[in-house]
Amino acid sequence: MRIRIVLVEPLYDGNIGFAARAMKNFGFTELVLINPCEIRDEGVARASHAKDVLENASYLTLDEVFETSNITIATTGSVSKSACHPMRMPFYTPQELREFLGDVDGTVSILFGRENWGLNNEEVKRCDIICTLPTSEIYPIANLSHVVAIICYELSHLKPTVAIPLATPKEMDQLYIHIAEFLDDVEHPDFKRENTMILIRRVLGRMKLTWREVSTIHGLMRRAQDRINFGKK
Amino acid sequence: MRIRIVLVEPLYDGNIGFAARAMKNFGFTELVLINPCEIRDEGVARASHAKDVLENASYLTLDEVFETSNITIATTGSVSKSACHPMRMPFYTPQELREFLGDVDGTVSILFGRENWGLNNEEVKRCDIICTLPTSEIYPIANLSHVVAIICYELSHLKPTVAIPLATPKEMDQLYIHIAEFLDDVEHPDFKRENTMILIRRVLGRMKLTWREVSTIHGLMRRAQDRINFGKK
Repeated sequence: MRIRIVLVEPLYDGNIGFAARAMKNFGFTELVLINPCEIRDEGVARASHAKDVLENASYLTLDEVFETSNITIATTGSVSKSACHPMRMPFYTPQELREFLGDVDGTVSILFGRENWGLNNEEVKRCDIICTLPTSEIYPIANLSHVVAIICYELSHLKPTVAIPLATPKEMDQLYIHIAEFLDDVEHPDFKRENTMILIRRVLGRMKLTWREVSTIHGLMRRAQDRINFGKK
Repeated sequence: MRIRIVLVEPLYDGNIGFAARAMKNFGFTELVLINPCEIRDEGVARASHAKDVLENASYLTLDEVFETSNITIATTGSVSKSACHPMRMPFYTPQELREFLGDVDGTVSILFGRENWGLNNEEVKRCDIICTLPTSEIYPIANLSHVVAIICYELSHLKPTVAIPLATPKEMDQLYIHIAEFLDDVEHPDFKRENTMILIRRVLGRMKLTWREVSTIHGLMRRAQDRINFGKK
């Protein structure tokens, strides 16, 4: 899937620069500008290490965007209140959009409107899908670059490159066996034993321990046991 | 749950303003600033209609933040590569953080570091949970306000305030019955009939049609049928 971020008549070059940076942060590079403001120092500065995205931006007309897109998406702050007004209904959240797009093969263009009044009805009308960012009713209008960042974040669906090495079931079983021995050594009362073991399983069970964390817990118990048993001799 | 956004020694007032705006967009209002830069015109301008969040920000020390938080979260761009280095391991994505926090009752403080080098180890060490935003390896460093926006977006988990009124199963059944009649009227060949009906169900089935969309499809077929049958008389 090829995803293009299309800014329709953006008014402030700072937002263009920030949008380019957010795109690159999430692995997107195709920026399309339709009749944008002039990009000056502030735009370039805010793009930071995404100046290449700015420099390689395509300057297209709205018609050219539609002609070269398999699916076009209108992002909009306001949605229709009733199914009788299909201009902005039905609509999808960024998360639903990600699920909806899934693995489609083709060019998907996502249109973002002007900072002051968004996309107009003529533009929204021609789009295939309406996407809206759910925001607080008290202050629903988010900055353009923040909306771009959140949609890129959702669509990239990147996973951390480092995996968290959880302890194996066998390592966890050995930990619980060791804890039972530890309770012997600290002379934990028999009548409390069962409940305490359950409580410990509740605590450690929800922790999703790594093998290294398990190993440190073993080590600490062993040191305590050595000292207890040394004292007994 | 009370969520506090804590900016640790932010260097640029523009980012503070944008962070305040993003917070309010997603319904958060508690901003804590630790030894921030001076907030001048640009910070206030970028806060836009979230000037109240800026004005009501608390100026605390790191100790005061820890003393008054039930859970503290360190956001960090870099994570440990191995479980042997627990400073930044294990870590959670913003989405995992939302699932993790669930419905906990208490004060959760989320710490965001300096624009140039994030949180230092002394700060990260004291936090309960590490949260990292998965970004592209090519350009992993996102703007501070974009990271705040994405985490607020995830934690708010707002739903659109307008519901999409889907057609009922009965309305969908009636639509398929009408389509079968329509195929009669257009003299669709019998041998293709079953496959065509399945294909139509595949198209309409995945569309999650609203009652209003169903009603318009009925109307269009009816108009076509009227004209076909008028011609036959």
